[in-house]
Amino acid sequence: MTNTLTPQPAPRVVMYGLGSMGSLIARMILDRGGEIVGAVVRSSEKAGRDVGEFLDPARTLGVTLTTDPDEALAAKPDLVIVTVASYMEDVYDPIRRSLEAGANVLSLSEELLYSWTTEPERTRELDELARRMGVTLTCSGHQDGYWVSLIAAFMGSAHTISTIGGQATWNVDDFGPELARDQQVGSSVAEFDAWLSEVERPPTFGRTTLEALAAMSGLTVTETSTSTRAELTADGLHCTALGVDVPAGHVIGFTDIDTIRTAEGVELQLEMCGKVYQEGESDSNTWTIHGEPTVTLRNEDLPTHLTTCATLVNRIPQVLAADPGYATLDALPPLRFQTTLR
Amino acid sequence: MTNTLTPQPAPRVVMYGLGSMGSLIARMILDRGGEIVGAVVRSSEKAGRDVGEFLDPARTLGVTLTTDPDEALAAKPDLVIVTVASYMEDVYDPIRRSLEAGANVLSLSEELLYSWTTEPERTRELDELARRMGVTLTCSGHQDGYWVSLIAAFMGSAHTISTIGGQATWNVDDFGPELARDQQVGSSVAEFDAWLSEVERPPTFGRTTLEALAAMSGLTVTETSTSTRAELTADGLHCTALGVDVPAGHVIGFTDIDTIRTAEGVELQLEMCGKVYQEGESDSNTWTIHGEPTVTLRNEDLPTHLTTCATLVNRIPQVLAADPGYATLDALPPLRFQTTLR
Repeated sequence: MTNTLTPQPAPRVVMYGLGSMGSLIARMILDRGGEIVGAVVRSSEKAGRDVGEFLDPARTLGVTLTTDPDEALAAKPDLVIVTVASYMEDVYDPIRRSLEAGANVLSLSEELLYSWTTEPERTRELDELARRMGVTLTCSGHQDGYWVSLIAAFMGSAHTISTIGGQATWNVDDFGPELARDQQVGSSVAEFDAWLSEVERPPTFGRTTLEALAAMSGLTVTETSTSTRAELTADGLHCTALGVDVPAGHVIGFTDIDTIRTAEGVELQLEMCGKVYQEGESDSNTWTIHGEPTVTLRNEDLPTHLTTCATLVNRIPQVLAADPGYATLDALPPLRFQTTLR
Repeated sequence: MTNTLTPQPAPRVVMYGLGSMGSLIARMILDRGGEIVGAVVRSSEKAGRDVGEFLDPARTLGVTLTTDPDEALAAKPDLVIVTVASYMEDVYDPIRRSLEAGANVLSLSEELLYSWTTEPERTRELDELARRMGVTLTCSGHQDGYWVSLIAAFMGSAHTISTIGGQATWNVDDFGPELARDQQVGSSVAEFDAWLSEVERPPTFGRTTLEALAAMSGLTVTETSTSTRAELTADGLHCTALGVDVPAGHVIGFTDIDTIRTAEGVELQLEMCGKVYQEGESDSNTWTIHGEPTVTLRNEDLPTHLTTCATLVNRIPQVLAADPGYATLDALPPLRFQTTLR
C-alpha cells in the first residue's frame, strides 16, 4: 500500500523551556526531521545563544534563545512544547500565550494529563481558547506511556477487574537537594508526621494519571483519595543529594497512594514512591490487575528521562492532526512509535 | 457526563465451536449480559443438549447445540464467534457461512490476526464478502493483547528502535499428547533435524503476529523469515502429556523465531517456545526494545487461556461498531476493558 496523502512539511516547533527535559526533546525533534524555530528560556544568561549550539556545540540553527515569549512565538510555530512546570498554576500563562499565537501545544505538565477535576475553570478556559484558535492542547510524557496507554491496553486482557494497582519508584538522589528536602529525607518519624499534618500539597501526579486512565478505559470516576506513607531506612542510608547519612529508623522519602473508585466498580490505585535508593535498586513500574485473571506487568531499570521525552515526541503528529481543544489522551489515537514527525 | 446515546440491546451471539476456549468465551459473554442464541459443535454426541446446561449444569438457556451451522445461523445473530481452528484453511468455510448469514465475525484463528500475506486470495474474498454484507471480520485473542496492542503502545515510548524482540513460552504438558508429539518431544537431535528438514509447516503464529504489530505501528514490511531451534533437556525430564521420561540431550520442544524487516529500518522479532516445563517454569512474555532507550516489559505466570478469551470478549463492542470488511487490529480503536458488551 502506498500513502496517497501529500507529504506534510516538517513541523515548525518553539520550545517553551529548554532545561534538561526540553533540551532532550529538542534534540529528538531535530533527529526526526522537525524544525526548531524558537526557544524561550528563563535565564538571561542563556538568552542570545544559538539554539543549535546550546544543544550541541557542533551545530548551528540560526535561531536565538530568548527570554521574551512574544519574540519566539512571532515565528508562527505549528507547535509549542511547554516543559517549564508540572502544575496548571505555573503553565497556564505559557500555554495561554502559545494558544493565542495560533500554535498547538504539547506539555509535559503532569497536572494537565487530566486537569478537568483539579483545575476545572482554567482547563475550560484553555479548552475554549484552543477551540477558538483551531488548535490542540495535550499533555504527554512518561505517564502517558507507562501509566496510561500501556495499562489501558493491559486492562483489555481482563474479564473482570476489582482493582488495578500500579507501583512506581524514583530515586531522590537523581534529582538534587531541593527535591530531597521536599521528600523529607533525614526527618524523624515524628517530624514527618508533623509535616504531613500541616502541609498543603498540590494534586499528586498519581491522581491526574488515574483520572486519565479511567477516561481512557471508559470508567466514570465517583471518588478520589490520596494518602501518604513515610519510607524509612532500617539500617541507615547515605543520601548523596543532601550529602548526609540518614540514621536507622529515619525517613528516606515517601509514597503517595492515590485511589480512584468508579461507578463501574473498578478501583484504580497508584503508589508512587520517591526515596533514596539502596545499592541495587532502580526505577521500576509494576501493575497488577486483580480480577479474572489476576495478571502482572513489569518494567525494570526504566530510563524515565528518555521515555518521558520520546513518548511526548511520538505524540507530535497526532496532536497536529487532532480536533481543536484540550485533548486528553483518550481523545487521541493509540500511542505508537512514529518514524517521522511529518 | 451522561451517555446520551440510546442504550444498545445485548448482542446476540452464535458460538461456532464450543471446545475449551469457546466454552470459556460463552461464559464470559453471558457474565457480561450478552445473549447466546446458537452454538455449532462438531460432535453429534454433544448435539441436542442445551447450551446453558452444557456450560453449567445449573443453567438452562433454551438454546440447543447443533452440528448444523445453518440451523444455528437461522437465529440471525449480530455476531458469530469462531473458535474451531487456527488456520485460514480450516476456518474459511465457517467464517464465509457466518458472513453470508449477515453476522459480524470474531475469530480466535491466529492466522487471521493478519492473513493478507499468508492467504491473500481467501482474505480478499472474505473482506469483499464482509463489505457486501455490511459486517466486520476480526481476529483477536492473547496475541492481540500481549503481542500487539501492549507492544505497539510500549514502542511509543522509544525515540529510536533498531530491534523490538519478544520471547513467549508455553508448556507442552498443558495441551495433551497430540501437541506434545507435534513439538517433537522425546526425539533425538538427529531425529529432530531430519524432521525439520522435511516438514512442511503452516505459517507460524509469530509471523502473523509481527505483521499485525507492524501494521499497528505504521511500518512497511519488506522481508519475513522463520527459523526453528530445538529445545533440549540437559538432565532428562518427564513429559506428563506423553507419560514418558525424555533422556538427557533429547528434545523437549522447540522455538520458532520469526523476524520481520521493515522499510523504516525497524526489525521485529518473536521467539515462541513450546516445550515441556521444568518445575518452577511458567508462561511468560518478555519484550525488549533495543534503541534509545533500551527498555524491557515482562509478564510472568500468564494464564493464557483466560487472557485469550477475555481479550476477544473486550473486542466485541468495537467489532460490532467497526466499518464493514476484514478489520485487522490497526483498524479498530485501542484495546481496552469493556464493562458492558452493549
